[in-house]
Amino acid sequence: MPREHAHTVSSYEQELDRIRAMMARMGGIVENQMALAMAAIVDRDEDAAAGASECDPQVDALERDVEALAIRLLALRAPLAGDLREVVSALKITGDLERIGDCAASIARRSLRLDPADGRISLGGLRNMGRLVQENLRRAIDAMGQHDSERAVEVWQSDTVVDELYTAMFRELVTYMMEDPRTIRSCTHLLFIAKNLERIGDHATNIAERVYYAATGDLLPVVRPRGGAVV
Amino acid sequence: MPREHAHTVSSYEQELDRIRAMMARMGGIVENQMALAMAAIVDRDEDAAAGASECDPQVDALERDVEALAIRLLALRAPLAGDLREVVSALKITGDLERIGDCAASIARRSLRLDPADGRISLGGLRNMGRLVQENLRRAIDAMGQHDSERAVEVWQSDTVVDELYTAMFRELVTYMMEDPRTIRSCTHLLFIAKNLERIGDHATNIAERVYYAATGDLLPVVRPRGGAVV
Repeated sequence: MPREHAHTVSSYEQELDRIRAMMARMGGIVENQMALAMAAIVDRDEDAAAGASECDPQVDALERDVEALAIRLLALRAPLAGDLREVVSALKITGDLERIGDCAASIARRSLRLDPADGRISLGGLRNMGRLVQENLRRAIDAMGQHDSERAVEVWQSDTVVDELYTAMFRELVTYMMEDPRTIRSCTHLLFIAKNLERIGDHATNIAERVYYAATGDLLPVVRPRGGAVV
Repeated sequence: MPREHAHTVSSYEQELDRIRAMMARMGGIVENQMALAMAAIVDRDEDAAAGASECDPQVDALERDVEALAIRLLALRAPLAGDLREVVSALKITGDLERIGDCAASIARRSLRLDPADGRISLGGLRNMGRLVQENLRRAIDAMGQHDSERAVEVWQSDTVVDELYTAMFRELVTYMMEDPRTIRSCTHLLFIAKNLERIGDHATNIAERVYYAATGDLLPVVRPRGGAVV
């Protein structure tokens, strides 16, 4: 192989690896952001809440960096087939990761607005939902790092349970408010927190769909299994 | 110019034009979806609500079509500079348009769950907010079609007012619920409807940012003016 060619190939691989490393970092930050957001609600941990909000600029900057590098790679290296699908998927996945970060920051901000006197509101449902969404997010990010289409399918399938938990939470919170109107303010924040968790679950599913497509070149069925999050 | 070259250039332009036409169509559908969603709430129009939900598959299909065509264009034509930025921006903008469609469909679905007996809840605030968001969305889509960076800046700046209206709506709805707990179920749906409008405003702003970048190669400042939608 002529030296020039070897050099080009190696830079190409290095640039693709840099995009992968940035995506992994972005994934790690939003996973951490989500863990902090859950600690902010469940343990009423104000430092965790502040930490979750502070991650936002880093995530936004990484989204822009991935885009700049992707544009550079597309312009100078003209990747094809699987590599091209991976670069295009990266551009889409960063959008989902950025929104997961927004949702986590929103959960953290709202945790500060819950009335501590509302200790009577059970956070059990929210804790379960949060745990499942965290697990799905972790698996989606693993699948992304390992180009693992089978794991992507697992994530895609398990979002149904998240939707079911969300619907149950919605009903429970509305009942709380009706039974004791003093809980209304806290419950509206908890409603939005539950909605944000459900949305994080949706974004994890989107990431899984993208990983599957980048790895296989095929699309998952258009209609994914839904647990009926109609509210 | 040799015939072969002329042919290639023309196909290239045709493919770029096809992406532009698909984006314009996608923009038109979500604008219409949003108008139907507003009619569903403000006029309690059930046919409009059904219409807004029915647009979703079309929007999803167009997102996939734009992506397929973008990948084809990137692989076969290797666009550069402004054209490359436009293709990458199109990939990102379709994500925002698809989510605007989701928000509009969610508004429409919730409109069917409002208790008609809750006529005492004033929808004036929601109507104003909806009108402003519709106007911003229309301008963002116009800016996209015309690669108009000045109009994009206008959209970007006016989202502050949407955030302010949302915060006022949130407070108003919580007050309604506290004063008359019978309105709780309807008010929670109205809270989410207001949140969806605010999110549509955010997505319109994202589109404006993308249009500005594709047209100029520059980024708008990271921190956009905010009206304080902290709730």
